[in-house]
Amino acid sequence: MTIRNVLERKNHVLYRLQHSRDVWVATAHFGRAHLVPLSLSWDGVRVIAATKRNSLTARNLEQSHQARVSVGDTRDVVLLDVVVEVVPVGEPGSAVSEQFIIRNGWDPREANGDWVNLIMTPIRIQAWQSEEELVGRTIMTHGTWLT
Amino acid sequence: MTIRNVLERKNHVLYRLQHSRDVWVATAHFGRAHLVPLSLSWDGVRVIAATKRNSLTARNLEQSHQARVSVGDTRDVVLLDVVVEVVPVGEPGSAVSEQFIIRNGWDPREANGDWVNLIMTPIRIQAWQSEEELVGRTIMTHGTWLT
Repeated sequence: MTIRNVLERKNHVLYRLQHSRDVWVATAHFGRAHLVPLSLSWDGVRVIAATKRNSLTARNLEQSHQARVSVGDTRDVVLLDVVVEVVPVGEPGSAVSEQFIIRNGWDPREANGDWVNLIMTPIRIQAWQSEEELVGRTIMTHGTWLT
Repeated sequence: MTIRNVLERKNHVLYRLQHSRDVWVATAHFGRAHLVPLSLSWDGVRVIAATKRNSLTARNLEQSHQARVSVGDTRDVVLLDVVVEVVPVGEPGSAVSEQFIIRNGWDPREANGDWVNLIMTPIRIQAWQSEEELVGRTIMTHGTWLT
């Protein structure tokens, strides 16, 4: 198997962020892990998801502002450590809700309940497709691409 | 879309546990979430995975003994809240290492480093394939199947 360089992995990660249907979002509260799949959008810098304000995920993130998310699968791994801002859906002056609606074809404001957007900025990104690729899997650190 | 009953979901979850190649494992330490893909086996009651003793996942679990794991994908969701025991690979009297080796075709004892098995017992299981199936998604609570 070919071992991809940093640029090849970055391009693949960007493709995944632009085209994946969902993201797995792992959050925590006092040592207790939570994990859910959510629809996503990507504005070139940040991953945007939506969830109900009273969900465990939103409540964890209001406290920790930290998550680890996957936009790949277990044989095409793309993992992002992110800092997270929780904002009301459709907050004035924000384009994130519109991007999310266009990409996903549904509007949280039309769904039942009180929804929030999760604005997730990657700090560290890892990508690998095989055990051979574990070396060199980290392609962003401290929010900076290694290329 | 057909809404599956509890028994149909249970049978599908068991199929996934028997046949999925990997499991996503979310763990936590002091509000910080971690997430990794691991190979698995299933002994009928417990999910077994293997990781290095010094991995963040193993270290989190030595403290918390709690994880949330996915054996499906984001459109065929199978999520398990599990209690976790961390044991040395190949511990005498345990069949879990052998099961893991047969299913996955590799032996952690022959890999570099110091490996442990994660013995994960489900306490709560959720399964859904569509928004319509969110109602009734919980098919095990307190370690007991709801059928």
